[in-house]
Amino acid sequence: MTAQLSKKSEAWSARFSEPVSDLVKRYTASVFFDKRLALFDIQGSLAHAEMLHAQGILSAADYAEIERGMAQIAQEIGAGQFEWLLDLEDVHLNIEKRLTELVGDAGKRLHTGRSRNDQVATDIRLYVRAAIDDIGALLGTLRAALTDLAEQHADTIMPGFTHMQVAQPITFGHHMLAYVEMFGRDAERMADCRKRVNRLPLGAAALAGTTFPIDRARVAKTLGFDDVCHNSLDAVSDRDFAIEFCAAGALLMMHVSRMAEELVIWMSPRVGFIDIADRFCTGSSIMPQKKNPDVPELARGKTGRVYGHLIGLLTLMKGQPLAYNKDNQEDKEPLFDTVDTVVDTLRIFADMAGGISVKPEAMRAAALQGYATATDLADYLVKKGLPFRDAHEAVARAVRACVDAGCDLADLSLQQLRAFSDLIGEDVFAVLTLEGSVAARDHVGGTAPRQVRAAIARVRAQLAG
Amino acid sequence: MTAQLSKKSEAWSARFSEPVSDLVKRYTASVFFDKRLALFDIQGSLAHAEMLHAQGILSAADYAEIERGMAQIAQEIGAGQFEWLLDLEDVHLNIEKRLTELVGDAGKRLHTGRSRNDQVATDIRLYVRAAIDDIGALLGTLRAALTDLAEQHADTIMPGFTHMQVAQPITFGHHMLAYVEMFGRDAERMADCRKRVNRLPLGAAALAGTTFPIDRARVAKTLGFDDVCHNSLDAVSDRDFAIEFCAAGALLMMHVSRMAEELVIWMSPRVGFIDIADRFCTGSSIMPQKKNPDVPELARGKTGRVYGHLIGLLTLMKGQPLAYNKDNQEDKEPLFDTVDTVVDTLRIFADMAGGISVKPEAMRAAALQGYATATDLADYLVKKGLPFRDAHEAVARAVRACVDAGCDLADLSLQQLRAFSDLIGEDVFAVLTLEGSVAARDHVGGTAPRQVRAAIARVRAQLAG
Amino acid sequence: MTAQLSKKSEAWSARFSEPVSDLVKRYTASVFFDKRLALFDIQGSLAHAEMLHAQGILSAADYAEIERGMAQIAQEIGAGQFEWLLDLEDVHLNIEKRLTELVGDAGKRLHTGRSRNDQVATDIRLYVRAAIDDIGALLGTLRAALTDLAEQHADTIMPGFTHMQVAQPITFGHHMLAYVEMFGRDAERMADCRKRVNRLPLGAAALAGTTFPIDRARVAKTLGFDDVCHNSLDAVSDRDFAIEFCAAGALLMMHVSRMAEELVIWMSPRVGFIDIADRFCTGSSIMPQKKNPDVPELARGKTGRVYGHLIGLLTLMKGQPLAYNKDNQEDKEPLFDTVDTVVDTLRIFADMAGGISVKPEAMRAAALQGYATATDLADYLVKKGLPFRDAHEAVARAVRACVDAGCDLADLSLQQLRAFSDLIGEDVFAVLTLEGSVAARDHVGGTAPRQVRAAIARVRAQLAG
Amino acid sequence: MTAQLSKKSEAWSARFSEPVSDLVKRYTASVFFDKRLALFDIQGSLAHAEMLHAQGILSAADYAEIERGMAQIAQEIGAGQFEWLLDLEDVHLNIEKRLTELVGDAGKRLHTGRSRNDQVATDIRLYVRAAIDDIGALLGTLRAALTDLAEQHADTIMPGFTHMQVAQPITFGHHMLAYVEMFGRDAERMADCRKRVNRLPLGAAALAGTTFPIDRARVAKTLGFDDVCHNSLDAVSDRDFAIEFCAAGALLMMHVSRMAEELVIWMSPRVGFIDIADRFCTGSSIMPQKKNPDVPELARGKTGRVYGHLIGLLTLMKGQPLAYNKDNQEDKEPLFDTVDTVVDTLRIFADMAGGISVKPEAMRAAALQGYATATDLADYLVKKGLPFRDAHEAVARAVRACVDAGCDLADLSLQQLRAFSDLIGEDVFAVLTLEGSVAARDHVGGTAPRQVRAAIARVRAQLAG
Repeated sequence: MTAQLSKKSEAWSARFSEPVSDLVKRYTASVFFDKRLALFDIQGSLAHAEMLHAQGILSAADYAEIERGMAQIAQEIGAGQFEWLLDLEDVHLNIEKRLTELVGDAGKRLHTGRSRNDQVATDIRLYVRAAIDDIGALLGTLRAALTDLAEQHADTIMPGFTHMQVAQPITFGHHMLAYVEMFGRDAERMADCRKRVNRLPLGAAALAGTTFPIDRARVAKTLGFDDVCHNSLDAVSDRDFAIEFCAAGALLMMHVSRMAEELVIWMSPRVGFIDIADRFCTGSSIMPQKKNPDVPELARGKTGRVYGHLIGLLTLMKGQPLAYNKDNQEDKEPLFDTVDTVVDTLRIFADMAGGISVKPEAMRAAALQGYATATDLADYLVKKGLPFRDAHEAVARAVRACVDAGCDLADLSLQQLRAFSDLIGEDVFAVLTLEGSVAARDHVGGTAPRQVRAAIARVRAQLAG
Repeated sequence: MTAQLSKKSEAWSARFSEPVSDLVKRYTASVFFDKRLALFDIQGSLAHAEMLHAQGILSAADYAEIERGMAQIAQEIGAGQFEWLLDLEDVHLNIEKRLTELVGDAGKRLHTGRSRNDQVATDIRLYVRAAIDDIGALLGTLRAALTDLAEQHADTIMPGFTHMQVAQPITFGHHMLAYVEMFGRDAERMADCRKRVNRLPLGAAALAGTTFPIDRARVAKTLGFDDVCHNSLDAVSDRDFAIEFCAAGALLMMHVSRMAEELVIWMSPRVGFIDIADRFCTGSSIMPQKKNPDVPELARGKTGRVYGHLIGLLTLMKGQPLAYNKDNQEDKEPLFDTVDTVVDTLRIFADMAGGISVKPEAMRAAALQGYATATDLADYLVKKGLPFRDAHEAVARAVRACVDAGCDLADLSLQQLRAFSDLIGEDVFAVLTLEGSVAARDHVGGTAPRQVRAAIARVRAQLAG
Repeated sequence: MTAQLSKKSEAWSARFSEPVSDLVKRYTASVFFDKRLALFDIQGSLAHAEMLHAQGILSAADYAEIERGMAQIAQEIGAGQFEWLLDLEDVHLNIEKRLTELVGDAGKRLHTGRSRNDQVATDIRLYVRAAIDDIGALLGTLRAALTDLAEQHADTIMPGFTHMQVAQPITFGHHMLAYVEMFGRDAERMADCRKRVNRLPLGAAALAGTTFPIDRARVAKTLGFDDVCHNSLDAVSDRDFAIEFCAAGALLMMHVSRMAEELVIWMSPRVGFIDIADRFCTGSSIMPQKKNPDVPELARGKTGRVYGHLIGLLTLMKGQPLAYNKDNQEDKEPLFDTVDTVVDTLRIFADMAGGISVKPEAMRAAALQGYATATDLADYLVKKGLPFRDAHEAVARAVRACVDAGCDLADLSLQQLRAFSDLIGEDVFAVLTLEGSVAARDHVGGTAPRQVRAAIARVRAQLAG
Repeated sequence: MTAQLSKKSEAWSARFSEPVSDLVKRYTASVFFDKRLALFDIQGSLAHAEMLHAQGILSAADYAEIERGMAQIAQEIGAGQFEWLLDLEDVHLNIEKRLTELVGDAGKRLHTGRSRNDQVATDIRLYVRAAIDDIGALLGTLRAALTDLAEQHADTIMPGFTHMQVAQPITFGHHMLAYVEMFGRDAERMADCRKRVNRLPLGAAALAGTTFPIDRARVAKTLGFDDVCHNSLDAVSDRDFAIEFCAAGALLMMHVSRMAEELVIWMSPRVGFIDIADRFCTGSSIMPQKKNPDVPELARGKTGRVYGHLIGLLTLMKGQPLAYNKDNQEDKEPLFDTVDTVVDTLRIFADMAGGISVKPEAMRAAALQGYATATDLADYLVKKGLPFRDAHEAVARAVRACVDAGCDLADLSLQQLRAFSDLIGEDVFAVLTLEGSVAARDHVGGTAPRQVRAAIARVRAQLAG
């Protein structure tokens, strides 16, 4: 009996009366995208073989042969010399077939006590775990770069906007730290997701477990998993972790899209708050003067891609009966593309943070427009004893008068100001300055430069931890 | 100065030259859905007032008045006597206006050092935190109910399916525990989400913090928050927690949809594995004989609703510049409906678990179809020394012969079986029984009744903990 | 036999051994949202009854009684006096039960030859058809309003942006017409969708048709349907039309979101291209100076809601076996909310178009920034004989020199300009003006005021047609 | 001046002070996916050049050179010998650069009067138009195949299901025709979408039109477009057609998912209504007996992919200011993958239709379960004069009695039946047969074999038309 697994369909051919059609082969094959899992597949197979050997299911000689064969296969893949065959459908059968070519019967014994169902689930988890670790590191790099930028501009005053209208003066450093917080939550979510990724499905076999006396805890330990999946049906059909990962990725990209939107607006000539270094921009094939912020725009566009993958995976799993169904093969491409998109985007944003040049004069000029210190005036009146609602009303009338007169609050004389409330005194002018306004918001989370510096120290301690 | 906040637009009217149009009022008002936040709004306001008083910003008398007024408002709301006005736009202004009616200037002082931006962010977090706690409890109830069902059927054999084809025998208890695992991960995700929900935005004021000497840590402690939001811009513009909650809800509903799909299929007459009690079913207005599993069907349909809300919220936040924009008002309805859908569905599923009656004979009959023990035969051959791939091939040929002959593997004589491998001996028939097959999968996560009972004990310890 | 349909469950009670639980009733009831279909339900029932009578299935007396009863019910509903009962589950049974109260056995005969499955499908189609007609009219109103605005500003020059960088001068009228085109396509899509909505499912009964000699063409004609649904299974399970409608709605809201984004940016003080009348704006509870473009912001936010409903409905239908399943009850709320959102948004945008005031000086100043006529210079060189790529290169070097010198192209002397190409002559300065640039783009679809006016005439003819 | 476009950045390099970084190049390049547009790009360029020549903007010699160069490039691409360079970013610059290598200055003149913005919009429209035509043809093939299958089984009785419970008998042919209707609507939607695809954006140039005296109608005619886009800003920023196409694709895949779900359930051994030929199935790497319906399962899974692309594109366009932004580069991959998925799936389903073998005995046995003719009995009573609601009630009680007795309605004696209504006579037994039930639903759209055959004739006429 010398069944050579030279075509995938031969993995089950004896039961079938006709071969799979070529159209079907192409439609159902996954090898051209799942070969990305190859090294994780080998890693999982080796841990499985080690356990089979430890449990006396696989001989020492067979185990040694498998180790030798897999080492060669890994080397072939690394060197780009491995021949991937559509006929063998997926990464698992391609590797197993090559292993059997290299080491004979030992290769045919590798699949003892497992199925492709638990094998692929293990591979994907190893892959996602590695991706999460990469993303965690990149989030750290990006947060550090934004924190550096924040530190340079802890005192740089810009207008804070709500509804894209000037609201109150803030510092650019404070604004950058808002993104540091967002990306910090992304890191937390990725870490939480990792806990649920890092459980071993291997041992579930097709769906029910196996009749061999396997030691799942041993395999988990070898592969660095925190725990095993505690139900075999769930183990092979669970793709929660992929969806949770993509949901975390979607949130992360949403943050990217917000930052991108701001960078694009800030670089628009009417706003002119920043410039982005030429190396992150491109020009136009028709308009010779153009310098376009392509990187943030494209990143903003890539948000849709990740949202789409999330909804694609949720749709995939909706209403699927247990346990494994072929539908699940569709889990990989959205997942892989999400990883690529998030990784590439974080890398380029971390790089681009150093290419943002700030134009403090433009920011200051904008902050002086729009009555940014009106709230300060209301607070001033409250401190003089007026209830907040009445103070708000008085200042609203003052602003209205300024709008009509085309001037700023600070341009009004004391006498003019007192027309709106006789509680106003000489000391009012200090609170109407941008610096005064910013410095006065001096509590945890506030925009005062002192608080911005404290926040920077806090983030750096976090990143160092 | 007697500004009465009798219409919402009067909160800023002095700055405006014409009133908001009625069409605009209706389009932009949120009170008819955000009144659901009323008690959380009061809770947040009281904590804010308590801190203002402790910091000497609010007098003892004013604080007492506010407490008195809020107690009355809470009572009016509870009694359904509170008059909600469209003209006052939202829950916050409706309550503040009533407070000022009741307690005069003290009411006008409440808004000192805060804005609706941080106020609503606080309210929603309190709301989501409460929802998570409810959902956590309901997940526990549902898991307990399914565990009870699993225990009753720890030995009940049914066919395990992959691709909806008979794969290997499993127990119904084992199958139920797969859902117990899924809902367990949902509980974990909700708990992880809660960590990020449970941070205090109050103190961010409009976006930059406030000039009053507030004590954010004190408010956080009063309201049971674990921490404060560390950046004021982020605090008012962050809706991650709502999205993360909906993503966790979408995964939960996906699990529901899978279980619902199985219940519907299992109750279909050709399958007939279960019946669902009449009180969870409805009939037909035209077909007198119908008994339809409406509850699982409707739950499956509701999956779309939650997926939709998730994508709605992600779209909402995509590309929004900092800090608060009116877009964000759209965060509430999808969030509220997600909570309602998840809570109602969990409650009804927990109840329905007790209304599922299992038909062991039908399950057994089905398990005897479809060569469910073919893997056992292959494993048997491996244990006799054949490499797995060769064993697989031999059994495939045996199955093929059975398909052609219209019989089961167990129907073949020893002699017939030996035609496929001469390693087969008398002891083969034990492994071809359903009970033998199930009992042999005796490792952590396997379907052996012994393992099912161990898993039940583990879940119960978890639920008790 | 006096079965009174006093509770919904009694529509099938005889087959059931226990009543539906209260929790289940609430979970599965639809009456609180589907009562919106009441008048369409009556309309459909009357057409059905008319046909039953014409076919001799229903007596003249019974038909007259049904007509009388339905007239009264319609009146009661219109007057808000109809009592909707949860126990009767849905709009259909509520009305039928009331009818039977009013007219006795004639009411019990109405359901002859139909089922709720085809009845509700008919109701929804009537509802969507009416919604499409409303939306079509509102799109016309909005397009007309934008066309009026375009006409007022057919000559108003503003910078055209790509990548939010100044690209080339355009006119504000031309820019408005871009939205007129978008909303024109929305109207086309709605009209195309209407063709597929406007087919009659009634007659499909539960799923297979009915044994009564019905005349479906007659009912179709009475109700104004273009055709009947040609397969009964498809007729009751088809919700394509709802999804297609929501997809058209999602595209429409996407257009709204783009326009909203531009309005918000244009009203931002650094840009200052437009102002929006106070009646479409709101202020701040804390910042007395704020005037926020709430309407466009909220409309932008509502995009997410409609995207969500679309994906909700697509999820709902994914993988549903034929024919009707209870899942489908979930089709209504997303559909209703999509209609409301689109209708309200179109109405308020049409109104708001008249409240946009344009600031031509700010637009002109912005157009003079950013080398908007650089392409004109390149085209000039091409007309002098230089290949386009070389012309582009020459102008790019000129722009670079201007950037370094901090001046505009038009600020360079002829001699300076000739340093970049000796093809440049005195006539170059005409092409470097904004007016010259705009007027030169004088072909169908171009920004030349002449073309803008032609486009306006074309749209008006379309709207009049 | 000999600017060679040897690197993409050189298309605008003179304006920039530093080259684009390698990371940015990779992040922003599109050539590795948009090269799929190459032949459409050439087609568009040739039509543009032909018009430039006809308008006297391009010399006859230059036009001839461009034709010659493009012919060679098309040949190189066809032969796989064209060298695609990342440095040249996209398909347009790769081709233009090669053209300039081949024909010198004529190549540099090709871009006169156009921009990449209108060029790529034209390419994609040509691509989508071709895809729609392919899909239209494939839908015809699939519908024809399903109609053939329907004809073979116009009389084959199976149970019709609602809620996956047996509802009424139908024919398998009738069931197949439900899908023929669905795919017919898909064809209609694709045709409607084509109208909006088939409009020419070329001539919009960057966003405002061009200063050259172009003839857009001529280009439209050359390329087979029905009309030109009537606003240049809209022309370059419109991606409606891609979204509308994906929405139509999502609906189409939803139909596929429903059919797939049914095929999978029908092939499940407990149901056993059909078998699917081995060439469309695969086996298991562990379970030797398995034969899995991989093709329908995978198709069902691919639904998520297309839903995801739809939401990805909608997200992409949400809130984008006019006119072109780099975000839009993200339109292509989702679009391409949607086309591939839909085309491959239709092709394989059309093929698979011929591989479905029906098991009439299993269908008949199932139809005899579940009181499928209960409605017929109710209709019978109505025809004897009982109001429908009372008839429904009487039959429900009869069914209840049968459930308790474990028999079917047809098993009751006349006397037993008369216990539920004394209107029942000898003639009742004819209506209780499956054949009688099916034949009685004899109106347009009904399941009577006569109607099924009429529907087949109607579809065939449609397909022939």
